[in-house]
Amino acid sequence: MIRAGVVGATGYAGAELVRLLAGHPSVELTVLTSRQFAGARFDIVYPAMAGVVDSTCEPLSLERLIDACDVVFTALPHKIPMTMVPDLIDNHKKVVDLSADFRFQEAALYEAAYQPHSAKNLLKEAVYGLCEVYFDELREARLVGNPGCYPTSALLPLVPLLKNDMLEIGSIIVDSKSGVSGAGRSLSIGSHFCEANDSFKAYKVAVHRHNPEIDSILTRESGKEVSVTFVPHLVPMARGMFTTIYAVPRDKLTVEAIGSCLGSYYAGRPFVRIKGPEMVPDTRHVRGTNFCDIGFTIDEPHQRVILTAAIDNLVKGASGQAVQNMNIMFGFDEGTGLLNVPFPV
Amino acid sequence: MIRAGVVGATGYAGAELVRLLAGHPSVELTVLTSRQFAGARFDIVYPAMAGVVDSTCEPLSLERLIDACDVVFTALPHKIPMTMVPDLIDNHKKVVDLSADFRFQEAALYEAAYQPHSAKNLLKEAVYGLCEVYFDELREARLVGNPGCYPTSALLPLVPLLKNDMLEIGSIIVDSKSGVSGAGRSLSIGSHFCEANDSFKAYKVAVHRHNPEIDSILTRESGKEVSVTFVPHLVPMARGMFTTIYAVPRDKLTVEAIGSCLGSYYAGRPFVRIKGPEMVPDTRHVRGTNFCDIGFTIDEPHQRVILTAAIDNLVKGASGQAVQNMNIMFGFDEGTGLLNVPFPV
Amino acid sequence: MIRAGVVGATGYAGAELVRLLAGHPSVELTVLTSRQFAGARFDIVYPAMAGVVDSTCEPLSLERLIDACDVVFTALPHKIPMTMVPDLIDNHKKVVDLSADFRFQEAALYEAAYQPHSAKNLLKEAVYGLCEVYFDELREARLVGNPGCYPTSALLPLVPLLKNDMLEIGSIIVDSKSGVSGAGRSLSIGSHFCEANDSFKAYKVAVHRHNPEIDSILTRESGKEVSVTFVPHLVPMARGMFTTIYAVPRDKLTVEAIGSCLGSYYAGRPFVRIKGPEMVPDTRHVRGTNFCDIGFTIDEPHQRVILTAAIDNLVKGASGQAVQNMNIMFGFDEGTGLLNVPFPV
Amino acid sequence: MIRAGVVGATGYAGAELVRLLAGHPSVELTVLTSRQFAGARFDIVYPAMAGVVDSTCEPLSLERLIDACDVVFTALPHKIPMTMVPDLIDNHKKVVDLSADFRFQEAALYEAAYQPHSAKNLLKEAVYGLCEVYFDELREARLVGNPGCYPTSALLPLVPLLKNDMLEIGSIIVDSKSGVSGAGRSLSIGSHFCEANDSFKAYKVAVHRHNPEIDSILTRESGKEVSVTFVPHLVPMARGMFTTIYAVPRDKLTVEAIGSCLGSYYAGRPFVRIKGPEMVPDTRHVRGTNFCDIGFTIDEPHQRVILTAAIDNLVKGASGQAVQNMNIMFGFDEGTGLLNVPFPV
Repeated sequence: MIRAGVVGATGYAGAELVRLLAGHPSVELTVLTSRQFAGARFDIVYPAMAGVVDSTCEPLSLERLIDACDVVFTALPHKIPMTMVPDLIDNHKKVVDLSADFRFQEAALYEAAYQPHSAKNLLKEAVYGLCEVYFDELREARLVGNPGCYPTSALLPLVPLLKNDMLEIGSIIVDSKSGVSGAGRSLSIGSHFCEANDSFKAYKVAVHRHNPEIDSILTRESGKEVSVTFVPHLVPMARGMFTTIYAVPRDKLTVEAIGSCLGSYYAGRPFVRIKGPEMVPDTRHVRGTNFCDIGFTIDEPHQRVILTAAIDNLVKGASGQAVQNMNIMFGFDEGTGLLNVPFPV
Repeated sequence: MIRAGVVGATGYAGAELVRLLAGHPSVELTVLTSRQFAGARFDIVYPAMAGVVDSTCEPLSLERLIDACDVVFTALPHKIPMTMVPDLIDNHKKVVDLSADFRFQEAALYEAAYQPHSAKNLLKEAVYGLCEVYFDELREARLVGNPGCYPTSALLPLVPLLKNDMLEIGSIIVDSKSGVSGAGRSLSIGSHFCEANDSFKAYKVAVHRHNPEIDSILTRESGKEVSVTFVPHLVPMARGMFTTIYAVPRDKLTVEAIGSCLGSYYAGRPFVRIKGPEMVPDTRHVRGTNFCDIGFTIDEPHQRVILTAAIDNLVKGASGQAVQNMNIMFGFDEGTGLLNVPFPV
Repeated sequence: MIRAGVVGATGYAGAELVRLLAGHPSVELTVLTSRQFAGARFDIVYPAMAGVVDSTCEPLSLERLIDACDVVFTALPHKIPMTMVPDLIDNHKKVVDLSADFRFQEAALYEAAYQPHSAKNLLKEAVYGLCEVYFDELREARLVGNPGCYPTSALLPLVPLLKNDMLEIGSIIVDSKSGVSGAGRSLSIGSHFCEANDSFKAYKVAVHRHNPEIDSILTRESGKEVSVTFVPHLVPMARGMFTTIYAVPRDKLTVEAIGSCLGSYYAGRPFVRIKGPEMVPDTRHVRGTNFCDIGFTIDEPHQRVILTAAIDNLVKGASGQAVQNMNIMFGFDEGTGLLNVPFPV
Repeated sequence: MIRAGVVGATGYAGAELVRLLAGHPSVELTVLTSRQFAGARFDIVYPAMAGVVDSTCEPLSLERLIDACDVVFTALPHKIPMTMVPDLIDNHKKVVDLSADFRFQEAALYEAAYQPHSAKNLLKEAVYGLCEVYFDELREARLVGNPGCYPTSALLPLVPLLKNDMLEIGSIIVDSKSGVSGAGRSLSIGSHFCEANDSFKAYKVAVHRHNPEIDSILTRESGKEVSVTFVPHLVPMARGMFTTIYAVPRDKLTVEAIGSCLGSYYAGRPFVRIKGPEMVPDTRHVRGTNFCDIGFTIDEPHQRVILTAAIDNLVKGASGQAVQNMNIMFGFDEGTGLLNVPFPV
């Protein structure tokens, strides 16, 4: 049994961490912090949890975390984690940070997209927590920068093909669609029911902060300077993310070659399901699960590769992957606590 | 390990049984039958299950069920189960029938609401599978008539109060609201997305077949001839059922007395959560779970008791309760396989 | 052409007024006020209106309203209208107030449910704007208290039956279900997409402020002290309200008698559609329209009358009825500007 | 007053035609045909229309159409219209066909995507009803092939830029997202509420029949052989279509140049609203309207043009554009009957 703390437990990513950790056979959930709800029982904030999670939310205290946790999940807005993570690490805690603060190896990239970084010395050490790609590094990691939801859905289909030099690196377009929970639990007019309902729209067209995150990993994995065009959209549903990717192949490419590349890269990995050209992923098929379903085909007349991926933005796109990272860091099977049978509807 | 078969595995109740049984630690899922999809892998019909359930659907065969199962769940339209259940029982199988065929002790009641009954001799033996009310009978049962979704949501709040003679039996009104999955997977214009979306409506006003089912159990439990007014409605969401009940108290009644009556009746039962007057149940809080959340208050100026209940119509209203029944019949803890941590959103 | 102003034009009721008045053939929309968006073009707040409504929102100014309007619609939270309406009336403006401030003839009722009233002298003069019931008074009205959405859906089915002494006045139960837009455009966790989606729940059980409003009109129309049990619920859709009413008939009553009572009361009125026992109302059938669809049946075994009503809470439940009131006050046909053909889906 | 008939009036496109034509000031709706509902009142099929449209559906009869109509709208599955349109044209009727049968000038293109064409002689004469592009031809047209929904949303942003030779013709990618009503009223598992809800997915990836339709018009307008990559997706909402387009500019291009190209092409046209780089279109802003909102920006680091468009698939994507075509053919103002004020929510 390891002892886990969730910092920012009442946001959607935090609450999803609570869901997964409360059901994890090797984890004891010791600390839940919440700025807004400190002092309240967690099941008052999320009444679904009544009778299941009986913790009370606490104010954030580093001492308390250091005392009571072996691993800390920080589910906070970026900028805050970098102020507390160094202390946790110095006190021999393992940390999975769900913000962007430790996703970039180079401070300059982070600072261009976000703000000045106050814990640069940890950037080189932090491992980017894309489990299927950095499994080996993750086993030794003390600090994991948990990937963004959009990057997860874009990188899992792209990394194997780029590692195998199959795509023109300048040709890649990532068109992503996310459910509304991605915007979090903070109130905003865009997440107001009557405004989000019956609404499909693009936002932050080609200027979203997940763009450099995608680029930096593709660059690292391909060994070439890769940069993609990225457009996120909002879908009127709570959970789910679907990403459609367009790219020009370097040489004439067959559907079989893509399938074989993806299949061998992800062989034996429990959470990537390769769908093939006749079965298209669907966000409903991954709802509430840690799966990433990947489809692929070739638009023959235009010799263009089309990849599709579906994830649950709160699970594989956030908290599920965070728990998968913890599993790897602590030597558990990576699927532990994450393999509930999916809902048929 | 017991061996379980699901007859009608590709309907929504059947598929939800597969979800729950596939995750049950003491069950081996041996047979899935489907008329429409015989020969197809279950995960082709429900791609969410890829990598998790690798069974292939079979045509219905009594021999095969008798050979390969200790318990059979029949998730079929009423009228069909009564033709096969006697054979299963004769061959020492335990049966949980999710249709209406074995919910009535008296054939006349069934026949008035449905059609002639061809296995009347089993009606007296069959136990009505409302787990919290008939726990003791269920432990010995060979055949369970699993309750309808509406009756479950109406009976759990009402039974304790009627047993304690707290309500005027002629005054009870049950106003229920169900998600669209209650109408099943068969195509119909009422379940067509564009017709069900943005639509709230009543249907079968005061003539729904769950009305006599509710009445017969209330009559049995109260020892008086009880009959309620029952109106079902459809809500534009997939899962969830909410029931609001109005009744006149026999004597002046306090909120505390109701709370105490419900609380003591359900003491120690894991799936009934009493919410009390200040916390109203919400279908979102029970989504995907086997919980029944019960709220209550008194409309003081009119001295009227108001009870509310929320369940997931596919879980506590169908397949979850069916698995809970199996647990009780086989001596497992009643919560086995049914206590996954709920989703926060 | 009359000149109309909308105070509080950027809330949902205000914006719906803008929609209806901008399309009204005899109205010039001269003033739109908005506290939050003063100075901004209306079509920046509601981009749907680009190219159709080119007004700019103004801060609230009584002088400006007096100068530029013949009729003023106040779509503000209660308490504010009573501070400005007297000045408007003194300056010979006609006023339709969409708050609760002028819905009660007796200050005591208002003050028990809301707060002290500062314009009591206008209460007796103000006409309750339930168009089909108070048509004659509305023709002469200077000030209209526009009905609440729940009361509209409850009163239209009940008033004719109570006027004809058909129901036991102590037996009436009103079970209402509303779309989320009823909670307005102000941000709140209850209207947050991920919280309202997949959620059906009751709220303010038997303590909602629309309860005394319903009671006071039923009392006035029946000549007896009527008080109903009222429970509102929230439905996961943007627009629409459905109300189910239960009552005991005073004498044995037939479906025909109810149909004939409703039919003759609403004969010739364009916005009430009597559906009869075989056709149940549906919120989708009235979405975006000023219709109130009324269904009725008798639960024979329990001799209970069941009435159902569907309205669009933003139209007949608020802004459409407000425009209908204006039409009547100014001698236009009551349907002017309100008879757009409904959407099929 | 012209007399209009709708063939296939009870499908979604047909019913939307009824909505628009019933509210059109210069149209008398004389014939509604329906195979499935012949003999039934239209308002039994669409109860929203009670009191507004009192027509009865008829079986299809060419004689009756010839007798009673000046213009006929055929809202039928492709293949059927080509069997009846020649007779209508011979009898001097004007025809707007909403199927694909008359959208291609060259039979070979049609036959490659659909089936053998039995009225080829009319293909050259038929005008492609993209109102803003073929206005002049439409004024003289006897027969209009009304555009598909996807092509409308892709062509309106692309045509001006291609006419001005601004884009690399081989670089164009069209990523479209449609509401579920696009799949029509025929029952299918994909349109079943519980399957479409919470589901976002791609379908017919790069093999949809609207692809050659888009290509043929872009080729005609640009004078070059253009072919695009096209991927359609399904969004869990009833109405609305959003299209995101990616293309490489031929020369360095500024946002201003794009805005000016689009702005001058659509100057004076009431239904195209150019949004510019800071305001992104949203399906909610065009719901129920005939507008096409167009956004655009340049992804500077990759020198890629990104265009976005939002339409209501049933209005500008089908029946609204059909009525606009009728307006142009008969010399009415093109906006007649199509300029209702949009809904704010």
